[in-house]
Amino acid sequence: RLSQPIDFGNRGMTLEEDINETNEYYLAQQKAIIHKKPTPVQIVQVDYPKRSAAVIKEAYFKQASTTDYNGVYRGKYVDFEAKVTKNKTSFPLSNFHEHQIAHMEHVCSHGAICFVIMRFSAHNQTFFFEAEKLFPWWKRQYDGGRKSIPYEVICEEGFLIPMKYQAKVDYLHIIDQLHFRTEEEE
Amino acid sequence: RLSQPIDFGNRGMTLEEDINETNEYYLAQQKAIIHKKPTPVQIVQVDYPKRSAAVIKEAYFKQASTTDYNGVYRGKYVDFEAKVTKNKTSFPLSNFHEHQIAHMEHVCSHGAICFVIMRFSAHNQTFFFEAEKLFPWWKRQYDGGRKSIPYEVICEEGFLIPMKYQAKVDYLHIIDQLHFRTEEEE
Ligand SMILES: [Mg+2]
Ligand SMILES: [Mg+2]
Repeated sequence: RLSQPIDFGNRGMTLEEDINETNEYYLAQQKAIIHKKPTPVQIVQVDYPKRSAAVIKEAYFKQASTTDYNGVYRGKYVDFEAKVTKNKTSFPLSNFHEHQIAHMEHVCSHGAICFVIMRFSAHNQTFFFEAEKLFPWWKRQYDGGRKSIPYEVICEEGFLIPMKYQAKVDYLHIIDQLHFRTEEEE
Repeated sequence: RLSQPIDFGNRGMTLEEDINETNEYYLAQQKAIIHKKPTPVQIVQVDYPKRSAAVIKEAYFKQASTTDYNGVYRGKYVDFEAKVTKNKTSFPLSNFHEHQIAHMEHVCSHGAICFVIMRFSAHNQTFFFEAEKLFPWWKRQYDGGRKSIPYEVICEEGFLIPMKYQAKVDYLHIIDQLHFRTEEEE
């Protein structure tokens, strides 16, 4: 039995930090209001010490039923999940849970702007991959299809997210191109 | 020092249950996708027992920086806070935190559908009160204004939410009237 200070760090933390920083920049610039949802926790036992804050003494991590991030951009609902892989040649579908896919399908059917931010840490590349392009891969894996999306597919069908100084994962730039392109630009 | 199983029950729990049930109904009917955000918790210490789930041994409640609920309806971003008062004659502004008001102002400025669901438990009445109508009351309290919104104002400027069998807090009905009224109905 190992007890240790929490360190979510190993898996995807850097991406999460980059996205949180980007969201703070978007907020400060009044570009978009996007927040990470708190980690869902099942609270079992709480102590209420006198004259100090309540202490949660027993709780468990719950599987998220939705995605990591949501918010509003230009009045539209934005919803996305962030995932990192160390793989070089493909993105494993095991990174997603059935619940998350179902949630993404639901919000898509209600007109959301929904996508995945995928980082290939070995390539130091971060992609914007639309949820609608993920769903067929997810379904085909149960029909004998492969259990991962090839890196080439993500390069071709996804969008490389530029890494900027103040917006390390500048995904609004991609949303603009996909959803708000003005006639002049087309 | 008192240790006890968690029971969020006393304050606003019934309203939360009613809204969660309503949201499940909306989801099942594919009317809207609205979720409650998890309670934000600052995790300090986690145990990793062999062969069983990680146990959070020390954590603290954090003040929410946003509102309780958000999601998508007809492609639009929806964001709201739910609050209960036992007061009969007014709704105390102390129910809100500065952070929540700031968040509501931010999302409003980005075109969100943003409101408060206020329950007067003594009257057994639940109101839909638009965020834009809350802001002036919030500001005036720091200019010597009153620290609560009179019940009559909420009756007049808010909308009584019908309590239906399957949608106990049927707030989409009000959103339809306010934001999606068809020309025929006008
Ligand atoms: Mg994630
Ligand atoms: Mg609340």
